[in-house]
Amino acid sequence: MTTNEKISKLRSLMNEGKIDAYIVPSPDYHQSEYVAEHFKARHFMSGFTGYAGTLVVSADESVLWTDGRYFTQAEMQLAGSEVKLFKMNESGVPNILQYLRTKLHENACLAFDGRTIALGQGKDFEKLLAEKKGRIKYNLDLVHAIWNDRPSLPSTQVFIHDLKYCGESCASKLSRVRDAMQKAGANKHILLTLDDIAWLLNIRGADVSFVPLTLCYAIISHNDVQLFIDAAKLSAEVKSYLHDHSVKLNAYNEIYEAVKTFVESDTVLLDPERINYSLYSNIAQGVRIIEAQNPTVMFKAVKNATQIEHIKNTYVKESVAFTKFIYWVKTNIGKVPMTEISAAEQLINFRKEQEDYQGESFNAISGYAEHGAIIHYRATEETNKDMQPENLYLIDSGGQYFDGTTDTTRTLVLGAITAEQKKHYTAVLKAAINLSMAKFLYGCKGSQIDMAARAPMWALGLDYKHGTGHGIGQFLGVHEGPARIVWNYPDPKNETVLEAGMLLSNEPGFYSKGEYGIRLENTILITKAEENEFGQFLCMDTITYIPFDRDAINPSLLSAPEKEYLNAYHQKVYERISPHLTSDEKNWLKAQTAKV
Amino acid sequence: MTTNEKISKLRSLMNEGKIDAYIVPSPDYHQSEYVAEHFKARHFMSGFTGYAGTLVVSADESVLWTDGRYFTQAEMQLAGSEVKLFKMNESGVPNILQYLRTKLHENACLAFDGRTIALGQGKDFEKLLAEKKGRIKYNLDLVHAIWNDRPSLPSTQVFIHDLKYCGESCASKLSRVRDAMQKAGANKHILLTLDDIAWLLNIRGADVSFVPLTLCYAIISHNDVQLFIDAAKLSAEVKSYLHDHSVKLNAYNEIYEAVKTFVESDTVLLDPERINYSLYSNIAQGVRIIEAQNPTVMFKAVKNATQIEHIKNTYVKESVAFTKFIYWVKTNIGKVPMTEISAAEQLINFRKEQEDYQGESFNAISGYAEHGAIIHYRATEETNKDMQPENLYLIDSGGQYFDGTTDTTRTLVLGAITAEQKKHYTAVLKAAINLSMAKFLYGCKGSQIDMAARAPMWALGLDYKHGTGHGIGQFLGVHEGPARIVWNYPDPKNETVLEAGMLLSNEPGFYSKGEYGIRLENTILITKAEENEFGQFLCMDTITYIPFDRDAINPSLLSAPEKEYLNAYHQKVYERISPHLTSDEKNWLKAQTAKV
Repeated sequence: MTTNEKISKLRSLMNEGKIDAYIVPSPDYHQSEYVAEHFKARHFMSGFTGYAGTLVVSADESVLWTDGRYFTQAEMQLAGSEVKLFKMNESGVPNILQYLRTKLHENACLAFDGRTIALGQGKDFEKLLAEKKGRIKYNLDLVHAIWNDRPSLPSTQVFIHDLKYCGESCASKLSRVRDAMQKAGANKHILLTLDDIAWLLNIRGADVSFVPLTLCYAIISHNDVQLFIDAAKLSAEVKSYLHDHSVKLNAYNEIYEAVKTFVESDTVLLDPERINYSLYSNIAQGVRIIEAQNPTVMFKAVKNATQIEHIKNTYVKESVAFTKFIYWVKTNIGKVPMTEISAAEQLINFRKEQEDYQGESFNAISGYAEHGAIIHYRATEETNKDMQPENLYLIDSGGQYFDGTTDTTRTLVLGAITAEQKKHYTAVLKAAINLSMAKFLYGCKGSQIDMAARAPMWALGLDYKHGTGHGIGQFLGVHEGPARIVWNYPDPKNETVLEAGMLLSNEPGFYSKGEYGIRLENTILITKAEENEFGQFLCMDTITYIPFDRDAINPSLLSAPEKEYLNAYHQKVYERISPHLTSDEKNWLKAQTAKV
Repeated sequence: MTTNEKISKLRSLMNEGKIDAYIVPSPDYHQSEYVAEHFKARHFMSGFTGYAGTLVVSADESVLWTDGRYFTQAEMQLAGSEVKLFKMNESGVPNILQYLRTKLHENACLAFDGRTIALGQGKDFEKLLAEKKGRIKYNLDLVHAIWNDRPSLPSTQVFIHDLKYCGESCASKLSRVRDAMQKAGANKHILLTLDDIAWLLNIRGADVSFVPLTLCYAIISHNDVQLFIDAAKLSAEVKSYLHDHSVKLNAYNEIYEAVKTFVESDTVLLDPERINYSLYSNIAQGVRIIEAQNPTVMFKAVKNATQIEHIKNTYVKESVAFTKFIYWVKTNIGKVPMTEISAAEQLINFRKEQEDYQGESFNAISGYAEHGAIIHYRATEETNKDMQPENLYLIDSGGQYFDGTTDTTRTLVLGAITAEQKKHYTAVLKAAINLSMAKFLYGCKGSQIDMAARAPMWALGLDYKHGTGHGIGQFLGVHEGPARIVWNYPDPKNETVLEAGMLLSNEPGFYSKGEYGIRLENTILITKAEENEFGQFLCMDTITYIPFDRDAINPSLLSAPEKEYLNAYHQKVYERISPHLTSDEKNWLKAQTAKV
């Protein structure tokens, strides 16, 4: 079926239901970033495979919104279909709400599957249709009827994340959450986000690609936890473990009925940013709702000493694999056949040699030459490029290990490059170094320190259209909230203060469309620096130990402190990584990390 | 009467009125920064003369809140009274609302003069007392009864700000405001802030110290403007001018009755951040209110080409006066008697030689040695220090001219200083230079670029507890909203994007309590740099031309680009200012601005 045929079928169903517009968003029922195949309705309908995007179909038009990371990819994948691309945040482009305000007539009907719609957006739609004296239908999964071979819900075995890695027992975490509930005056707390539940109960699964999660919902009370999960996923050992923590089992979908039974004396703590519209709307009338961030969000973001020790170890392992990979690429390019896909597989092979490796933490971005400029490029059989001993190669990849989750990007010189490319690489390197060197007062948010990274690039009239940093989990999501480092953070009121113990990426870039892309990504741990009369200072501890490509650096563009930082960093890379290398690799690394 | 006696009298009145807590804030009825003597109730009651502070008196306690600029001053001025100082934003210190939540019992009564209370704060009090099943009384000026010799309301003559300076007619400005009203769907717009009215009508007065404003309120409709003002302040010429713009005259206090007569078909645009609680509360029930920033706030902040030309000229005049002053201080220190007060007067004398000078734009901060560390120090006869040929002298001063408003700070070396002082001066200079050199993408807010200034100081574990920059008016307030440059901007959701044409201060500092203070302040105009595929870049045009004190600079601590910037800046200072100097001054400036 072509995209246009699918949309045509959807229109027939819309017509039957007297629906004027139908929304197909990207999320699963849990607002997850990576969703199981079962949930990929927007991909199925539009053909666009990017992780973020929303399709809106009306009688005479279908529009897909996505963000700057995916513009090029979406243009390619939508070509030939009737779906128009709306580039989010570009000037003159309406957002979905503005579009629907214009598109929908009075008394219109807007429909969607409310389990896949965030609460805030659902409320916006509700308000819009109220203004138009129309209505919304939020319990309709129209794509289901069109999608004949839809994959079933995943059902992988649940396992326990060992205390030696996570450093805090489920009992202790539950106690902290219950304290927060008590402080907020709540006797019930709904958790829908899979990483929050996984962190809280110290359980993991494999229901979702790249993140070791298990599909479930939870309602926490002072005496028990109601867990909504397919019981077939639970071994006797896990059942017994859960029972020991007063976790009661219910069927996965049962939660939508359970919240209808809340009584007026209940006070429910829930996170308006982390709940779907259907679940919220099903809560019984008259129940008091306290809207606040899930306490687990901040608890999870701030890593404890045990976690930090393990995560640092993970990054040494990851750095060894990545450094071996770089050596392999740079010494074999032009000698052995190499494609974007085969190179990425080679990196996985090196990673598999490392202890406790479980799989990739996201789909690697392996982009040669102009593909490097597609910020969230994914090489497919159709796009896969042969790599030649020329130009730049960008690889952004990470792994899941029992002890940590990694995310790294390096851009490699494969042959002769231009002075302009060196200038751009060096600018990105300056950005990464400046953020690594940043010291700042406690109280700062990511949007307030992003300037440290951007300044060297902005000074040259350059920029990258993505954040400089995102939070990273431990054997959890590679993109973990709440902290980010990006100057134009979308919701300034709710931006989080940076705390010691947070793990963040530091990944400035530069993209020359149709030519090449550069991104350099290390992981940084926020740590305490001195405390004095001005306050508590924080700084960055870089825990990734992978050389930058000296063939791409123009040292004359680095300031003295930048050079000093780079040389000290490279020396540390050599010290930490060389013991795990072959003598050839070691010699190469010695040269690669020599002073500039 | 001592502070304690006044508070005791206030408690008697509170007792009579069955009031549990009474609030005495700093603002006048117009949320002005500088208030006429008539309004200085909080100063009268507490003895604390800082511009910002709130006194709360209850049966057994009185507490004054003020911010970091005033901690030292408040400690000095409250000493010996029962008033406790609560340092705002210090950890563990409750804000007023948190304090009252604990302090007030069920059914309590909280009272204040609602004309002096901002709407948002009034609503918070309303909500708190509703929670406590108590009540608020907002129409009580209890201080009035205690303050026997209270100064009467000011009544100075109104005059017209010439079109040649402001570059846009009142008719054009009214038309822009009415377009904004129409866009918002409003037929009435209440203006209470004096600078907004002055800018809109191109009128000025002298009712308020330092800012050429006239006490009044306005209600703008599509056909007329109702102006609430003491008619005695208006000459025949001004009356005729106002009449020509369909401005109708009403008594000053009449507005509190006028808003009661609004009808249900009225839609009122008002700025919740720029209205007092009483005026808002008096608006007739059933009237639709649209809460949005006064359109004049952004119109006023973005200077037009005529204004910019005049403002640049103002800064040349101001720089000439300031440079002559610096020469005078540095060559006469230790030879002629010099005090903090006499020095500040000398600066005014130099300024008086300049065309169109109208007076100071704020009370100069003239702080020698340890007084320089009091961020908003004001020298009084009691505190006035003799200046010696040693240590540092900080002078922060500005002027009102018909063509512009200035604000400048320099810190001068009066004799031998320590290496530590040079290190601190150079750190502040680096901060100022780095902000001046900053280039950034359109869309940035002040909180996102403050890092440019702070980074060199934070790197050394240093900080200053005030903003790096504030907006500056044209022959209006020296502190003009909405833009500021400060990383911890208090209301992130409503922070303004920086626009080309905005005039801002750039004033990092360093304060060593009990020893010395350093602040360096230039004025910067935001201007457009290149526009390319990444967006519109903006940069800073520094329009103050006053040398930095080379005796305080340690050039080895400056980076190459910083040195280059400093040398280029000093060369420009010499070029622009030297033509207006005597030959002695010129020779001195030549040496002062030689390359470091």
